Amino acid sequence: MADAEARAKLREEARPDRGTLQVLQDMASRLRIHSIRATCSTSSGHPISCSSSAEIMSVLFFYIMRYKQSDPGNPDNDRFVLAKRLSFVDVATGWLGQGLGVACGMAYTGKYFDRASYRVFCLMSDGESSEGSVWEAMAFASYYSLDNLVAIFDVNRLGHSGALHAEHCIDIYQRRCEAFGWNTYVVDGRDVEALCQVFWQASQVKHKPTAVVAKTFKGRGTPSIEDAESWHGKPMPRERADAIIKLIESQIETSRNLDPQLPIEDSPEVNITDVRMTSPPDYRVGDKIATRKACGLALAKLGYANNRVVVLDGDTKYSTFSEIFNKKYPERFIECFMAEQNMVSVALGCASRGRTIAFASTFAAFLTRAFDHIRIGGLSESNINIIGSHCGVSVGDNGASQMALEDIAMFRTIPKCTIFYPTDAVSTEHAVALAANAKGMCFIRTTRPETMVIYTPQERFEIGQAKVLRHCVSDKVTVIGAGITVYEALAAADELSKQDIFIRVIDLFTIKPLDVATIISSAKATEGRIITVEDHYPQGGIGEAVRAAVSMDPDIQVHSLAVSVVPQSGKSEELLDMYRISARHIIVAVKCMLLN
Amino acid sequence: MADAEARAKLREEARPDRGTLQVLQDMASRLRIHSIRATCSTSSGHPISCSSSAEIMSVLFFYIMRYKQSDPGNPDNDRFVLAKRLSFVDVATGWLGQGLGVACGMAYTGKYFDRASYRVFCLMSDGESSEGSVWEAMAFASYYSLDNLVAIFDVNRLGHSGALHAEHCIDIYQRRCEAFGWNTYVVDGRDVEALCQVFWQASQVKHKPTAVVAKTFKGRGTPSIEDAESWHGKPMPRERADAIIKLIESQIETSRNLDPQLPIEDSPEVNITDVRMTSPPDYRVGDKIATRKACGLALAKLGYANNRVVVLDGDTKYSTFSEIFNKKYPERFIECFMAEQNMVSVALGCASRGRTIAFASTFAAFLTRAFDHIRIGGLSESNINIIGSHCGVSVGDNGASQMALEDIAMFRTIPKCTIFYPTDAVSTEHAVALAANAKGMCFIRTTRPETMVIYTPQERFEIGQAKVLRHCVSDKVTVIGAGITVYEALAAADELSKQDIFIRVIDLFTIKPLDVATIISSAKATEGRIITVEDHYPQGGIGEAVRAAVSMDPDIQVHSLAVSVVPQSGKSEELLDMYRISARHIIVAVKCMLLN
Repeated sequence: MADAEARAKLREEARPDRGTLQVLQDMASRLRIHSIRATCSTSSGHPISCSSSAEIMSVLFFYIMRYKQSDPGNPDNDRFVLAKRLSFVDVATGWLGQGLGVACGMAYTGKYFDRASYRVFCLMSDGESSEGSVWEAMAFASYYSLDNLVAIFDVNRLGHSGALHAEHCIDIYQRRCEAFGWNTYVVDGRDVEALCQVFWQASQVKHKPTAVVAKTFKGRGTPSIEDAESWHGKPMPRERADAIIKLIESQIETSRNLDPQLPIEDSPEVNITDVRMTSPPDYRVGDKIATRKACGLALAKLGYANNRVVVLDGDTKYSTFSEIFNKKYPERFIECFMAEQNMVSVALGCASRGRTIAFASTFAAFLTRAFDHIRIGGLSESNINIIGSHCGVSVGDNGASQMALEDIAMFRTIPKCTIFYPTDAVSTEHAVALAANAKGMCFIRTTRPETMVIYTPQERFEIGQAKVLRHCVSDKVTVIGAGITVYEALAAADELSKQDIFIRVIDLFTIKPLDVATIISSAKATEGRIITVEDHYPQGGIGEAVRAAVSMDPDIQVHSLAVSVVPQSGKSEELLDMYRISARHIIVAVKCMLLN
Repeated sequence: MADAEARAKLREEARPDRGTLQVLQDMASRLRIHSIRATCSTSSGHPISCSSSAEIMSVLFFYIMRYKQSDPGNPDNDRFVLAKRLSFVDVATGWLGQGLGVACGMAYTGKYFDRASYRVFCLMSDGESSEGSVWEAMAFASYYSLDNLVAIFDVNRLGHSGALHAEHCIDIYQRRCEAFGWNTYVVDGRDVEALCQVFWQASQVKHKPTAVVAKTFKGRGTPSIEDAESWHGKPMPRERADAIIKLIESQIETSRNLDPQLPIEDSPEVNITDVRMTSPPDYRVGDKIATRKACGLALAKLGYANNRVVVLDGDTKYSTFSEIFNKKYPERFIECFMAEQNMVSVALGCASRGRTIAFASTFAAFLTRAFDHIRIGGLSESNINIIGSHCGVSVGDNGASQMALEDIAMFRTIPKCTIFYPTDAVSTEHAVALAANAKGMCFIRTTRPETMVIYTPQERFEIGQAKVLRHCVSDKVTVIGAGITVYEALAAADELSKQDIFIRVIDLFTIKPLDVATIISSAKATEGRIITVEDHYPQGGIGEAVRAAVSMDPDIQVHSLAVSVVPQSGKSEELLDMYRISARHIIVAVKCMLLN
């Protein structure tokens, strides 16, 4: 009872006075005017959607959130993630339900890695909550008790193409949020006082994230546009803008501004630059180990080298071997369950503001599930690292749906993404260390079956630097492989050398960027002949990348071996042969090329 | 009261007798033995997951479902969609939460297009329900009152990597299903009588889909494996299999079989072959119309030609112009809201068993969201057609996140997918008609800004047949474009011809398959010189496709113009020029090539 009384008193104290409420209301009106002006001047944008959340924005930015206005990137600042498109905040445009996952990553980082006071707010539209990735994030946040996270559903009823699922059925949103384990408030999104109250209440709740379901209206304050269909994404008719702005201006009573509260400065200092493994790779040439396992071991080693390395996995940790990291550093491992989109978004959130070095792993085939999230991560120039295991037909028994045969094509389209495709355990360990330090997104493609270690612990690796594994003055063809196909190329070289045919063998190490200089000089040394061989579909793969790289040189001819049909299940070696990327087929291709 | 009594009586009548229950139990035991044997013989698979749902399968297949055993593809049969992986059903392996969307498409088709009695059952694992696409489907099914749909959640607690989110918190599943608007039952998944009861009850419920949350145990009936972690995906130790099979066999009491009930034969006959537009395209050369709009008009025209044409959209119908179809044939339009994964899955379901010709449209950029679903559709050899509007920088003002610059790369990796990239309204209409009749998946890429009609209504189009738009004996370079870049190529040709430089201009029409013959013969006629120009990233795009197609010919040189950096917002024409795919840059490229 005393507790309840104390709480009521606290609540009363947290209540803003009349004057403050009027300022918040006036600031909302100004935001609204600003959004009309901004979209009029570019003739594009969403002034109506913007206006529905003006009060929410005003209350958050000028009453609830703690941050340094002069230093928006400060690690102690509260975070604001905008999942819906607003013209007056210049971030994250076009995110469709990706914001909440990112917010989850920030909140997880704040609560468990930084153990700091900053809080995370995420504003979403109702339309967006149809996206499944929102519900992946909802499940994640409640499972991990992210009580430093507040999601605001701006339920303005209208999507791009008319009334949405839930109409104004606020209670549907409420029930869904509650069923997903969130502390949930329903509020009139135009009522600044009510908004102040629920956001304050949210800050008092322990162990649960808070959802604020705000009933709002698009085009609020704009006569005949408010709540009407078919205005979505359209700028205000220019001739009406002035009259409307005048109307909104007439409702403004003060010219006062509010300063946001300053943040609590309790985030730890973090150093994530120049991370180095504390010892060279512990493998001997000839050892047999799968690169997926070497990758798990390397992550654990990297975790030892830097305490801001975190690893995420999507219910595949025993297969990707991220379990090795989990066993050593469970406090830095995030099980994301079978929800690849959210895993990528959470990783984006963890890596934002340079708080962690995040690696997210699952089967490479399952990463297609998160293409849009990966794409947005690329556009945001995030430094996240993604690991895809079980690539290609070398997977063997699992069937085509679990073999990644399009992942290289997918990641090649991500601007500035580095694609590692290490062949053995030593190069895998180097890939992990290089990815940790690289700017921009990295993708590491790992192989399921065991392969032989071919590099000594002393070998040095760099991004964009291929390895020439076999070469002599009599080389007639350059064979370019990566991962499993390097072994096929080496076997082909051995066999061909018995017949006095010599080939140069290149291990690409990174597919993007390509080592164009080595490829071209090798091609020139082998009379312009290149054969590429890859455990991937031809489309968008290594063959096409190499061809694009040498296209300015008319004397270079490229022949490509790749998996050109949907593969069946079978034994790894049998499938490599059946789909024509084995040593035997390389030998045939070399001989054919020499005949022409 | 009389109603309640009648219902109770009906319920009593529907209850299976003791003998039948024992047969169902015995059949479950036999399924279990079968799954152990099957996975032992291949040394791969999921015998433990399989065993958890043996009773569910036995009750569904031998007591509840109506189908002709001898004719599994019969349109009147009840449908069964397996979202989890079971070794004793050889379909749909590896689907992660995609099955429910497919089941929604089948149920929607049954209820609204076929108006038939067949019902749809979908079995899912609990792990899988972490996938957001499951909740997209859940929202869809309740919104459209799919009371002919039953989803079974096999809550066996264990995922690949240990205990799942909800542990055995059956009530969490229950609450979530209810919050998403489903009629929900909780049942002991090992109790055949209870299963019979709830499935029967489900058939009586109107206006709501039914969720059956079944508590089960992995490895049921297998001492020391039942409910233990770390057995997922592992075949039974061979030495133990015999003993375990013996144990299960000892529980079998009868050798009787049950015949499934026959289906009610009330599906309409459907003809979806040889669909033709009833009139030629109604455009004149020189008209200005966006291909996205021409696409919407063509869909409506196709809808007139065949009443099994259905269109789906993901909250973008005013932008993709699928609204035109919706206006004419609202009963064949499915609004899927902002849930692209589910839209693709629903389309797969609609198109299954050849019940409809399904077209699903949204912004091409948003299709990246559904890559995994598209990939699985490709593996299933579905005939669905996907339309992606707003491609490339020509979108203009919306910003990079809404410009599709990787969609060609994505669809090129889908085996047997036909990719249309029509340039004007006439070719767009032909693309739509050709897609309707094509085997396998089709993708149609449409452009946002208005473009000029360049083909006469009489022009004939075929898949894999490019159009040579400009040619003369003096041509020195072949310029290959598609969509918006064709106009840039034509403008370049005009300008260059004034300087007595002649170029051949090719409009590809389909990117996959490519018209290799026309490309090579044109290249030969222009001294081996090709320039490709595309509104797409270079990776996996038209340039790489063309280069791969001509790679066996050492005398052909390909230079590619593409969007090579992340674009900004701006005016369409300005962006084409800024990202070097405009007429001006084609002219420079032609002159450069001629200098070398």
